[in-house]
Amino acid sequence: MTSEGTAVAGPAAGASGGRRSRRGADVPALVESARNGDARAVARLISLVEDASPALREVAAALSPHTGHAQVLGLTGAPGVGKSTTTTALVRALRTAGKRVGVLAVDPSSPFSGGALLGDRVRMQDHAGDSGVFIRSMASRGHLGGLAWATPQALRVLDAAGCDVVLIETVGVGQSELEIASLADTTLVLVAPGMGDGIQAAKAGILEVADVFVVNKADRDGADQTVRDLRYMLSLGGRHSEAGHWRPPICKTVASRDTDNGVDGVLSRIDQHREWLESSGELHRRRSERAAREIEAIALAALRERMGDVHGSAALGALADQVVAGATDPYRAADELVAQL
Amino acid sequence: MTSEGTAVAGPAAGASGGRRSRRGADVPALVESARNGDARAVARLISLVEDASPALREVAAALSPHTGHAQVLGLTGAPGVGKSTTTTALVRALRTAGKRVGVLAVDPSSPFSGGALLGDRVRMQDHAGDSGVFIRSMASRGHLGGLAWATPQALRVLDAAGCDVVLIETVGVGQSELEIASLADTTLVLVAPGMGDGIQAAKAGILEVADVFVVNKADRDGADQTVRDLRYMLSLGGRHSEAGHWRPPICKTVASRDTDNGVDGVLSRIDQHREWLESSGELHRRRSERAAREIEAIALAALRERMGDVHGSAALGALADQVVAGATDPYRAADELVAQL
Repeated sequence: MTSEGTAVAGPAAGASGGRRSRRGADVPALVESARNGDARAVARLISLVEDASPALREVAAALSPHTGHAQVLGLTGAPGVGKSTTTTALVRALRTAGKRVGVLAVDPSSPFSGGALLGDRVRMQDHAGDSGVFIRSMASRGHLGGLAWATPQALRVLDAAGCDVVLIETVGVGQSELEIASLADTTLVLVAPGMGDGIQAAKAGILEVADVFVVNKADRDGADQTVRDLRYMLSLGGRHSEAGHWRPPICKTVASRDTDNGVDGVLSRIDQHREWLESSGELHRRRSERAAREIEAIALAALRERMGDVHGSAALGALADQVVAGATDPYRAADELVAQL
Repeated sequence: MTSEGTAVAGPAAGASGGRRSRRGADVPALVESARNGDARAVARLISLVEDASPALREVAAALSPHTGHAQVLGLTGAPGVGKSTTTTALVRALRTAGKRVGVLAVDPSSPFSGGALLGDRVRMQDHAGDSGVFIRSMASRGHLGGLAWATPQALRVLDAAGCDVVLIETVGVGQSELEIASLADTTLVLVAPGMGDGIQAAKAGILEVADVFVVNKADRDGADQTVRDLRYMLSLGGRHSEAGHWRPPICKTVASRDTDNGVDGVLSRIDQHREWLESSGELHRRRSERAAREIEAIALAALRERMGDVHGSAALGALADQVVAGATDPYRAADELVAQL
């Protein structure tokens, strides 16, 4: 690593990457620079894969021999539980341990902001100038499935660039966020006291993806009750009670801009989980499943594109109008689309 | 409508529908019964479409001439804002107005509960015995995209069965939930005071889908601030400030088991939105777009199945292992899958 450069792979660098790609990107040189720790090269590569640019396939091929090193952490939870401050505290602790860290902050797009409202500038203040941290905000830009598509690609870039740990922070608790969390080797689920009772947490569907629970804001009233609620939910649970399975521990933290109480405990639980993943064979199983999902998603996107090429978008619109009028049903309409491929 | 029967289309009835379908369902008779208000027939039809049974296509074809009547309302918001009580209050008000109402309560699946934790029994207490209300809890049962798949089918059953209004209540604020909310003609977004500040709400990505905002629990401290925050967010927004566009109104409610304060105001905003939808041509546009998405999803599912038939599931696993090992990349692997179709 001869030069690590500046460490922020933000939207501005991304836009410049986009311009570069239209002139044709020198992919091998970019991959080489990224592997040497050049943050601008990392930013450009992420932009190339995120925008599904013509260079996308070349980038993917050039990255693949260098992937598989990074430990991937997912961090999810309902709005307001303190994900951003916890991410910051984890990054600080990992940096202290000498790890190179990548952060992918996944925000649902909003036409109100054209992307992440908090923005990279707020988020990266603590780490700006630290050459061992890459931070990237991902915005879906209005594509359905856009984040589920782009995030594994960006993860692969950070992995190939030599990050020891990549932390994927997802906002919200919906299916897409869970899919993104499922990219992780180890998924942390954050909860906070007073964010609704146990039933609400379970409704949000976050329990089943947790490898480690973090009760953040543990200095608040109700923290112990939240821990008890989680323990009770876990005692009801299926997979976690079986022999040989991982039983998610529950950590308490008070992460803020100034204090990192409990964060070391979280990291040691992550290490324990990592050891279990390796000794049980679960690590390979998870990564293989993740790759299978990605391959399938790419294949389906290619087929969708082919449908568009064969029929043109007007054909789908005409079929849709027939369905609305009750003249046909969606299955017969789909048959027509597929038949001619 | 000679007989409206019992009005609960719950999981038990669904399971019985599943058994029936394995013996072969008499689809025309079921559709006829459902149109006459037989709740058991409605439940069986939903089960047939939800389970992707062999009769699915026959059901879809039999329903389509009878669809398009129901007004579809979506109701979404973060966990804890009071969606269930608001749904109950809206149903009560719509029943008072003499409407037949269907409710699809969409819960992410949880292995901790095998489905909806609150369960139909809690939810339907207020309406049990009312023959003009169908309530159905949808659970994704572990299929990715399962809810996005099954919900429009169930909606079509309720529509064909003669519901004047179908209310789709989604838990959570993720992409899938937004997709499901997008099935609606009119989407209500619930927020509550103290559930996180305006920025958190925007991060959750719910602002852009709202046709009507409902600030629930409006008797709590901070309700006026929440209204001001929403108004400010809207003032920043893109689409809503353009001429001819709908500017989402903000209603305040206190919906609980005993009080429905403000619910009539919500209903009158829904009526205004409906008028705008019709006069602007937006109603047809939304429904046509919804049908197009559904057709495309069905076509892609058919193609995915064909990939499985051609290659077998072992082939995808082998390709995935190669990706994990860095021997190939997901794009080349996807090419192999698609090439032989």
